[in-house]
Amino acid sequence: MFPEYDIIVVGAGHAGCEAAAAAAKMGSKVLLATMNMNTIAQMSCNPAMGGVAKGQIVREVDALGGMSGIITDQTMIQFRMLNKSKGPAMWSPRAQSDRMRFAEAWRLTLEQTANIDFWQEMVSGIEVENGKAVGVVTSLGITIRAKAVILTNGTFLNGIIHIGERQLGGGRAAEKSAKGLTEQLVELGFEAGRMKTGTPPRVDGRSLNYEVMEEQFGDENPSKFSYTDTKPLAKQRNCFITYTNPEVHEILKTGFEKSPMFQGRIQGLGPRYCPSIEDKINRFADKDRHQIFVEPEGWDTVEVYVNGFSSSLPEDVQLKALRKIVGFENAKMFRPGYAIEYDFFPPTQLNLTLETKPVQNLYFAGQINGTTGYEEAACQGLMAGINAHNKINNKEPFILKRSEAYIGVLIDDLVNKGTEEPYRMFTSRAEHRILLRQDNADIRLTRKGYDLGLADESRLKAVEKKITESAEIIAYLTNKPIEAGDINSKLEELGSAPIGEKQRAAQLVRRPNIEIKHIAAAVPSVKEYLSKFMPDSVEQAEIAIKYESYIEKENNMATRMSELENYIIKERIDYKNIPALSAEAKEKLLKVNPETIGQASRISGVTPADISVLMVYLGK
Amino acid sequence: MFPEYDIIVVGAGHAGCEAAAAAAKMGSKVLLATMNMNTIAQMSCNPAMGGVAKGQIVREVDALGGMSGIITDQTMIQFRMLNKSKGPAMWSPRAQSDRMRFAEAWRLTLEQTANIDFWQEMVSGIEVENGKAVGVVTSLGITIRAKAVILTNGTFLNGIIHIGERQLGGGRAAEKSAKGLTEQLVELGFEAGRMKTGTPPRVDGRSLNYEVMEEQFGDENPSKFSYTDTKPLAKQRNCFITYTNPEVHEILKTGFEKSPMFQGRIQGLGPRYCPSIEDKINRFADKDRHQIFVEPEGWDTVEVYVNGFSSSLPEDVQLKALRKIVGFENAKMFRPGYAIEYDFFPPTQLNLTLETKPVQNLYFAGQINGTTGYEEAACQGLMAGINAHNKINNKEPFILKRSEAYIGVLIDDLVNKGTEEPYRMFTSRAEHRILLRQDNADIRLTRKGYDLGLADESRLKAVEKKITESAEIIAYLTNKPIEAGDINSKLEELGSAPIGEKQRAAQLVRRPNIEIKHIAAAVPSVKEYLSKFMPDSVEQAEIAIKYESYIEKENNMATRMSELENYIIKERIDYKNIPALSAEAKEKLLKVNPETIGQASRISGVTPADISVLMVYLGK
Repeated sequence: MFPEYDIIVVGAGHAGCEAAAAAAKMGSKVLLATMNMNTIAQMSCNPAMGGVAKGQIVREVDALGGMSGIITDQTMIQFRMLNKSKGPAMWSPRAQSDRMRFAEAWRLTLEQTANIDFWQEMVSGIEVENGKAVGVVTSLGITIRAKAVILTNGTFLNGIIHIGERQLGGGRAAEKSAKGLTEQLVELGFEAGRMKTGTPPRVDGRSLNYEVMEEQFGDENPSKFSYTDTKPLAKQRNCFITYTNPEVHEILKTGFEKSPMFQGRIQGLGPRYCPSIEDKINRFADKDRHQIFVEPEGWDTVEVYVNGFSSSLPEDVQLKALRKIVGFENAKMFRPGYAIEYDFFPPTQLNLTLETKPVQNLYFAGQINGTTGYEEAACQGLMAGINAHNKINNKEPFILKRSEAYIGVLIDDLVNKGTEEPYRMFTSRAEHRILLRQDNADIRLTRKGYDLGLADESRLKAVEKKITESAEIIAYLTNKPIEAGDINSKLEELGSAPIGEKQRAAQLVRRPNIEIKHIAAAVPSVKEYLSKFMPDSVEQAEIAIKYESYIEKENNMATRMSELENYIIKERIDYKNIPALSAEAKEKLLKVNPETIGQASRISGVTPADISVLMVYLGK
Repeated sequence: MFPEYDIIVVGAGHAGCEAAAAAAKMGSKVLLATMNMNTIAQMSCNPAMGGVAKGQIVREVDALGGMSGIITDQTMIQFRMLNKSKGPAMWSPRAQSDRMRFAEAWRLTLEQTANIDFWQEMVSGIEVENGKAVGVVTSLGITIRAKAVILTNGTFLNGIIHIGERQLGGGRAAEKSAKGLTEQLVELGFEAGRMKTGTPPRVDGRSLNYEVMEEQFGDENPSKFSYTDTKPLAKQRNCFITYTNPEVHEILKTGFEKSPMFQGRIQGLGPRYCPSIEDKINRFADKDRHQIFVEPEGWDTVEVYVNGFSSSLPEDVQLKALRKIVGFENAKMFRPGYAIEYDFFPPTQLNLTLETKPVQNLYFAGQINGTTGYEEAACQGLMAGINAHNKINNKEPFILKRSEAYIGVLIDDLVNKGTEEPYRMFTSRAEHRILLRQDNADIRLTRKGYDLGLADESRLKAVEKKITESAEIIAYLTNKPIEAGDINSKLEELGSAPIGEKQRAAQLVRRPNIEIKHIAAAVPSVKEYLSKFMPDSVEQAEIAIKYESYIEKENNMATRMSELENYIIKERIDYKNIPALSAEAKEKLLKVNPETIGQASRISGVTPADISVLMVYLGK
């Protein structure tokens, strides 16, 4: 009853949506199979996109021609550029979204994308012929054929929800889990594992006392995710911040004896960097408070997400503890937090294209690969969609280098290092992070997206203009002499030393507190010259000038890192006794006991910073 | 972990939402327990509210202070007043809604209603003490106490979905069924039964050829449901009409051997008046075509509802047949139609308040009582909410008479006649239907709603104004003499006989083609007089004048009907041989073999028209 498709995408979360959209835009006939068309692109956990390193990924997805940035811009209720006080490598866009609007916008976007058909049913198996995926089988027993299959099953494969001592089958609260696929893949030779993740309770915003919490405003002049012409927010909703306290912790501890985590009922490892509140209390026993972000779920709904309070303790313990938090004295829960265990497939079974090694033309993207996070899922979906399309059209694989994109770092990490716990992106995972900035994702990637047939021509033109303009501005500022008499009062005003004789403008821009706009304010000819350029081009020129030396240093560091393969660790080291190593690095290094620094650097959770420490320790 | 509530409502469909809103507005502390807060107020079947008799119910719900009318007005994409060419008892408002907007509007409305808390979890049992419901138990084992409980479980109780030879557990496509409740209720002494209903496939609007279908426009000057100040639509979306044909029927027949209906796998009886396409082919073998309404699911989505093509045949047969319908040649399905079997409790176990007889303070509303339809569910929810609130506050039961509202007819039918198949409202079920019009639901019911503390004062003032004004207009028109010279050219224009000497205006209004607006157009003093009144008041006056004799006749008929109890049927009648009886009446009368005409009249599916036929046959 179905035609043969080019590509079948199984699952319509962040990974599945990007995969379907990318492959369809490139020209593949795509079938998007989802258990429920009403739950396309659910934000299963917090209603936010971006954040440190994650925001950069969304920008990269956007630059390549993906949709997550545009959809976030269309549905956000608050925008903040995190780490604006730090160097530009750390600037990270983050937005709160309206949960219902986000899901709806994705669905309508997919519906309006040519080449995508939809099928609402559970996929229970894949069709394999001669070691090659050639379709899927559904729970109704329908076989649908395709040239390639992309699995993006999220937390649905044999999902089990834990709350206290209770276990419920389910892929998300109130949704069925998916059966059959894991077992078939194992028969096909795949290794499977279990992971767990969790989510906090949802509460009724009407029951909270916001007056005693800290208010967290969006940016005064909010930016946005997409390099296209989406609009920044004219009005925003606030979040709030509050804290746990010793009384909260004491109450939570009363639930430990029923905790599925601590009592061993949960086998899978959870995300270290997104721990449950009971984990935090347990691991950081000396801390007497933990931060709680109180996030509205949309423009109009009263539902509130209690970020930082993920828990699988019994629901009554959750509520009792919650009510001891300042502002939550009368809190009403809509539903408790829970932990969920699900199957994943260690990603060392993948090629860098996200095609699986055991079965050709089968691609995995998202949590099925052991990652966590919407952004991590979205970019894998995009890359799987691109590569599946290229493969069936006999085109080159599309692989991003670690020095080209966080996406490259992510996939390289997964494929080469694997992961034992849900993998989340951090800036520290990227050794070339000064190159992988949110402001230059378009410069890094849009041409590639265009060549793939994914990013359209208007995107290419916009980035080419930005590149040309910023080069022009850099040339201008590098040559432009600024007279002492013109600039000194401005420098004084900014607490920067006056100049004795005239200096090139670029020279001044390299000073810590001095920005191009300051020079423009003092020197009318500079202001006039710059007025014809896009603000983004000016910003790009400023970053290039200001951080030139950092970028150089980073390049050197990268070269050094690539030589690490040759450094052999002869002795057996007691990593516990190297204080500067991170706790995670100590644990992992002790376990793996690597033979080279290169091997050490590829262990999941061992960061470049840890490697530097190790080099110093070894006197290298 | 929960306070004691006044009322717990289980389920958040049309019945549950109205029940929660009504009880909360009247002052009860309400907990709305739903398996999934993302699926509150789903339109599980077609995306439309109202229709013949059903539209009148929505107007009644609105007049009493319920929310279904307001929410429909807020989210509709097309509005039509059906049967406008017939008498005003038949005028029936009907709207297509945007499915996603409808669900969202209900959720946001409930969130913004004071006194409603939410709990997202499956309710698996009720707590009963001394024959009285005192709370519920959830799947997590939480007991939540309340003074009364309202069950509105829809099709979720032990729901089984059938498609061809496959069976899937589920309360709706892709949603879990609810376990445990039926079994407990049976233990408590309830009789349970099985019913079935079905839904057609959803298709991709982009794959249809609308150019070869009939276009169905909304009304030129659309009205709306609510008597409050909601706004009528400024723009509308069109529906389309097409037809099945013999080729379609032949293909469908090839699936009969796998039909869960025809092969006996489905035990429950389905809705006679909303049959599946295979039922229609089977029962009406002489018809070579059936009408199909092609209904858009919202403003923006491409999803389309194929009204009239409900089916549980194998999905490939559904698709193959669908593609032989004009305009559907290239149709793509999003999901197949299916049948669903679920538990219900014969409603003869209820009091007229919808409180159950076996367990006090326990109320049932909606499909659990064997009804079908959003409107039937909504009004039961409203009545259960009102009565549960009144009971726990020691107030009088709130019961509507058959002569006061379709709601009264519905509940009286359920409680006194029971139902063997999903009960749907028809105008023919209401012996006093000329009194139960969509235009006067406010006059009939708003004062009652206000006295209950449900309809607010502005509603009461609006209806009092309408009553006063229409009385004034009637008095005016009854006395106002119209000169022949003023009106005759107008009468001629309208094809109505000219008058010789002056006549009272009301006299003219009684003529078939003459409306008040025609007189106003011809006689400036009438026009000027009427200009100070609301259009609704003028309409009300017109109906009162025009149909005065019908209303009288209906009253006489009602009196006659009430005497039927005394008419004994002595002989055994072969009802098959009374041609004027409806097919359903023949079947039912043969089965029950009633002893009196009164008893015959209370059999589900035997209409007042059938009774008239019977009276004539018996010479009474």
